[in-house]
Amino acid sequence: MKRDLTPLFRPRSLALIGASDDPTKIRGKILAQIVKGAYPGRIFPIHPTAKTIQGLPAFAAIGDAPGPIDLALIAIPAESVPATLAQCAAAGVRSALVFSSGFAEEEGGANRALQDRVRAIARDSGMAVAGPNSVGMLDLAAPLAATFSPAIDFAALPGLRADPARRRIGIISQSGGLGFALFNRGLKRNLAFGTVINTGNEADLDACDILDFMLEDEGTGAVLMFVEAIRRGRRFAELAARALALDKPIIVAKIGRSPAGSRAAASHTASLTGSDAVHDAIFRRYGVIRADDQDDMLDIAAACTLCPRPRGRRVGIVTISGGVGGWLADTLETHGLEVPEFSAALQREIREFLPSYGAAFNPIDITAQAIGNDHRLRSIAVLEAADEVDAVAVVASLAADSRMVHEKAALAEIVARRRKPILFYSYPLPSEQARSDLAEIGVPCYTSLRGPALALAALADRDAASRDLARPKASPNDPAARDAALRCLDAADDTLCEYEAAAILAAYGIATLPSRLATDAAAAVDAAASLGYPVALKIQSPDIPHKSDAGGVALGLADAEAVRDACVALLGRIAAQLPAARLHGVLVQTMAPRGLEMIAGTVDDADFGPLLTVGLGGIHVEVLGDVATVPLPIDGSDADALLDRLRGARLLGPLRGALSRDRVAFAALLVRLARLQDDLAGRIATIDLNPVLLHDAGDGISVVDALIVQRRPDQRGAA
Amino acid sequence: MKRDLTPLFRPRSLALIGASDDPTKIRGKILAQIVKGAYPGRIFPIHPTAKTIQGLPAFAAIGDAPGPIDLALIAIPAESVPATLAQCAAAGVRSALVFSSGFAEEEGGANRALQDRVRAIARDSGMAVAGPNSVGMLDLAAPLAATFSPAIDFAALPGLRADPARRRIGIISQSGGLGFALFNRGLKRNLAFGTVINTGNEADLDACDILDFMLEDEGTGAVLMFVEAIRRGRRFAELAARALALDKPIIVAKIGRSPAGSRAAASHTASLTGSDAVHDAIFRRYGVIRADDQDDMLDIAAACTLCPRPRGRRVGIVTISGGVGGWLADTLETHGLEVPEFSAALQREIREFLPSYGAAFNPIDITAQAIGNDHRLRSIAVLEAADEVDAVAVVASLAADSRMVHEKAALAEIVARRRKPILFYSYPLPSEQARSDLAEIGVPCYTSLRGPALALAALADRDAASRDLARPKASPNDPAARDAALRCLDAADDTLCEYEAAAILAAYGIATLPSRLATDAAAAVDAAASLGYPVALKIQSPDIPHKSDAGGVALGLADAEAVRDACVALLGRIAAQLPAARLHGVLVQTMAPRGLEMIAGTVDDADFGPLLTVGLGGIHVEVLGDVATVPLPIDGSDADALLDRLRGARLLGPLRGALSRDRVAFAALLVRLARLQDDLAGRIATIDLNPVLLHDAGDGISVVDALIVQRRPDQRGAA
Repeated sequence: MKRDLTPLFRPRSLALIGASDDPTKIRGKILAQIVKGAYPGRIFPIHPTAKTIQGLPAFAAIGDAPGPIDLALIAIPAESVPATLAQCAAAGVRSALVFSSGFAEEEGGANRALQDRVRAIARDSGMAVAGPNSVGMLDLAAPLAATFSPAIDFAALPGLRADPARRRIGIISQSGGLGFALFNRGLKRNLAFGTVINTGNEADLDACDILDFMLEDEGTGAVLMFVEAIRRGRRFAELAARALALDKPIIVAKIGRSPAGSRAAASHTASLTGSDAVHDAIFRRYGVIRADDQDDMLDIAAACTLCPRPRGRRVGIVTISGGVGGWLADTLETHGLEVPEFSAALQREIREFLPSYGAAFNPIDITAQAIGNDHRLRSIAVLEAADEVDAVAVVASLAADSRMVHEKAALAEIVARRRKPILFYSYPLPSEQARSDLAEIGVPCYTSLRGPALALAALADRDAASRDLARPKASPNDPAARDAALRCLDAADDTLCEYEAAAILAAYGIATLPSRLATDAAAAVDAAASLGYPVALKIQSPDIPHKSDAGGVALGLADAEAVRDACVALLGRIAAQLPAARLHGVLVQTMAPRGLEMIAGTVDDADFGPLLTVGLGGIHVEVLGDVATVPLPIDGSDADALLDRLRGARLLGPLRGALSRDRVAFAALLVRLARLQDDLAGRIATIDLNPVLLHDAGDGISVVDALIVQRRPDQRGAA
Repeated sequence: MKRDLTPLFRPRSLALIGASDDPTKIRGKILAQIVKGAYPGRIFPIHPTAKTIQGLPAFAAIGDAPGPIDLALIAIPAESVPATLAQCAAAGVRSALVFSSGFAEEEGGANRALQDRVRAIARDSGMAVAGPNSVGMLDLAAPLAATFSPAIDFAALPGLRADPARRRIGIISQSGGLGFALFNRGLKRNLAFGTVINTGNEADLDACDILDFMLEDEGTGAVLMFVEAIRRGRRFAELAARALALDKPIIVAKIGRSPAGSRAAASHTASLTGSDAVHDAIFRRYGVIRADDQDDMLDIAAACTLCPRPRGRRVGIVTISGGVGGWLADTLETHGLEVPEFSAALQREIREFLPSYGAAFNPIDITAQAIGNDHRLRSIAVLEAADEVDAVAVVASLAADSRMVHEKAALAEIVARRRKPILFYSYPLPSEQARSDLAEIGVPCYTSLRGPALALAALADRDAASRDLARPKASPNDPAARDAALRCLDAADDTLCEYEAAAILAAYGIATLPSRLATDAAAAVDAAASLGYPVALKIQSPDIPHKSDAGGVALGLADAEAVRDACVALLGRIAAQLPAARLHGVLVQTMAPRGLEMIAGTVDDADFGPLLTVGLGGIHVEVLGDVATVPLPIDGSDADALLDRLRGARLLGPLRGALSRDRVAFAALLVRLARLQDDLAGRIATIDLNPVLLHDAGDGISVVDALIVQRRPDQRGAA
């Protein structure tokens, strides 16, 4: 049920339930600040007895207020909230924001029932309810600031009423004070904001609902989010894809990278944070930018709202200090950007105006003597026009007020025509005048090296994600393969035996090693003879997913006698140690030739849907954790890019004269595996191919073992 | 020749050569600003014709000035500088700072000869000369600000005159404006500074000389350095060791991490930046903290000058926002710190005052409702006293001026008794009042999550380095072994054959595989028979350091016939392909049992002296670059710590039930190898043991190949 959130953020009228005459109390403060913030709509204080509150006529109940009410602000004890909300709904109030705490956030979840009632009232009535346990919201288009956050200068709000021509930043925070702290910091950097909200416990409206509103809102050009838990992963992914298509960057701080961070998040919102790697994979796919600090978020937002997207990662630097220019070059390259040496032709072009004591190769060192001449402007213009860089970063010293005065008009002309980002970094703290001069002409001004590096990397990442996502993905579902796979799944236990998994893989064109199922030693010997020696034996039981650990595998059996002995020993061992295990038999399998060990697997994440993980096998995955994950669907190009993300990716390529491994065949397997998992999402929980051996280029791959686990019948979704 | 730099930084009198009446010119500006900065000593403007300059009596030549001159400030064209410096020296001037540019920094090094003359005059006369090409210096103990940097508010300088009770920060910058930019930023954070200098081209005084002065200066408590090239590596290491012993932190930004950064550094100072990994190894050993951004440097400096050293990496967090507390926990753990869950006893202690809606496990969430009560103070006091954390980080919202008012006195009492760092982080930008309140009681106040993380990690790193360096290192030189090794080296070419290298290693107790040198096939067969099959054959020639690449190795020869055939083939191949190579014969060597491939090597760095590098062999070193480096000398504990720094260190330990590798034997080899290189520093350029195979614990190691390269005779130092 999608509801219009305009009444919540830009109400024409509002009621304050729990209003107080005393502006030092939180409830009184909210009203006083709404008035101070010059909210232009009608305000109805609700109070059981008072005739007026802070000079405004008060009403005993919501139903008594004259005229329609878009928004009810609720600041009363938790136990009264559900009944009051019900009255609001009955009175036709269109939205509510609940400040009150004492719901699911309290330790032990004792008050969760109260929160469930809030949700039920909202869902039943169609009234959009934010909170409870919210610090409030702010909207500069209304304008309205309904919050008790101390980070806001309310008297200044009317002056901030947003310039409709600028791309405004929206803020969604699951943490109380953080959203307003971001807003407060961003204003000091001349950033333009639209809507800010603390979503609190998200009984009804969650971060995705608000994000949806901001993406549809014309004035919002970028969204900052602080999240402890994304409760609807698939919905978030859809919205992120839309944001990418609309070129509205989403910049997310997501806690839970560390055990302590997860502990805090779980305690704080009574919700668990998901796996960090899954979040990273989703963010990467949909061009969502993850940031690790408040200033990082704002640094990135500044470039995203002011600059065009670069078409690559090559940065040209113009500097008045050789040392600081070099330091910025280091920082950019550390963040995955490139600072290429300019071509001879471009250097000649720069040499036409640059004196001999300057440097022309990149960074361009115009030196401290460039004050009063046009070397900086000419350098910027040359780089803006050059095809060999995708962005221009300028190292400047803007401590003195006068520094931008002479160049502002000419710089504005270059900026007005720019096709690529142009950013400034001032190594002394810039003067207020220099800051506002640059802001006025739309140039982000950074005070850290990290800032422009993060911003340009984010812009380039988004551009890459946008091109990836626009590419048509893997071919459509394969109904015949899917039907065949479903028949196998229906016939199998939740944990499939390897031979059953092999049948499903085969339906999707993934070959495993030649093998035959045998039920006794004699049959195993027959099977081995037909397959050819040497062979492996593997116990097949839905109760033994990890066959080697259970002693259920024998490898490299060279003749009939070895097969017979091994089979008898193996069956005996299992019977003795796992007497309850249901046995389907023993799989007799050709031994694989040697190759590079890799792993490939999928998981159908409860929040975000199916994802594929690939890794270097053996010690790499175990000791070095060298794996990479991508959400489905994928195509061959995605599979290739996924392999490149491995730290040990060079192991696949030609190395020290040795041939390349069959990367092509492996990438093809990944695409097929992804299609299988994607076709059967909701039904298959995980697939593990471990190991897959990559042989020399052209010699293909060997899937040595395969494990498929179905979702439990009660957890199966529409496949 | 060590000179007292007090006359340079705190002169009792100074002359300005090239003084101008026009304060808008650089030369006039310097004088005007010295006056504005309330310099208390005598000022002698020097001018060929003027009687007064800016109202001060002027003199035609330095010799005409009445009275002794501690410092000559020189701002005249480059070509006149040497003669003027010579006049200064003749007049008994004790120090000089040369602002003039046009020396070695100009492209092509055309003006290097001019710079060499500056150096010669300084060295011959004993006058201490800073620059040329310097933006100037500043000293708040003098006080004197002799600079044309625009980043300084000169009128404010007298008010900054340093509180002698505070640990002041010194700044040494090889880049013109950066030092003053750091100073300018640091003042805004209430940091206390002493001396700031831009060393320019370092014709005479270099960064190490200035560092030496600052370490001896009682008022300087920490040093920030921005360096493009450390010109005297060994001297720097000595000074860094002294700084660690004195507990004066050195915080360094060193450019040259990336190709573009190195390009900029080389162009800018006409000096090459050294290898980044070597610098990192030196910094780590001597507790020098490397920082990547200006604010990072100041964030670290704030904690270093205000806080006691923590005894470990465990941090307790107190927060009013669960979300932000979790975010800080994530950030701390990402930076190598620990946020351990508190013991049940400690949680009980916290529960005594914390209400049920707060969290007590770490972070302690005192919640936004903690305003007006003493929960924050009690939490800090409990953590300050608790043995289970080494530092306390407080997440606060200090946007409102009044936030610290009530707690300041009580907090000051805790801080006065503190035995561990107590840091604040405010997620809204803190008010000026809150900042200065915290500064006043000596508590660093951060505005980023990254700040406290970097600061606490730096403090812990320094503490660890201090303990490591205090430990007595490897046993003293071994004269007998050294003499034996020297005899081998004297007899050998610059590039030693493996059998020669083996003899030197043997002198230091490092065994290589059993082997014998043979000069023909028959002798090879005899040797193989005495060693036992299988064997390897390896060509021995000082002209073939890489034997395998030249086809000079045959492996796994199982019998006499195989040895004879291989030897004939090998000698024939070398004779055909490298006819000029001088052959010593063929080394017949026992084949090593299988083991984990590692590498160990040393290099005698031209700047920093001998270092040891260890790595995981084969693909690890080649594809993953998994190596770690340490300066010599080392002991067993250093060797062990070095191995732990490898990303794949777990490969050495017990893994998946398999035995551990013989890490003990390998660590012992590293100590012996280090002693060998250290004993023969100046003589041996590099040693490579590649590979060394590590067998199961107790089974030892096999040094499969060894290469030693001597310094060229003309480059040999005192060994």
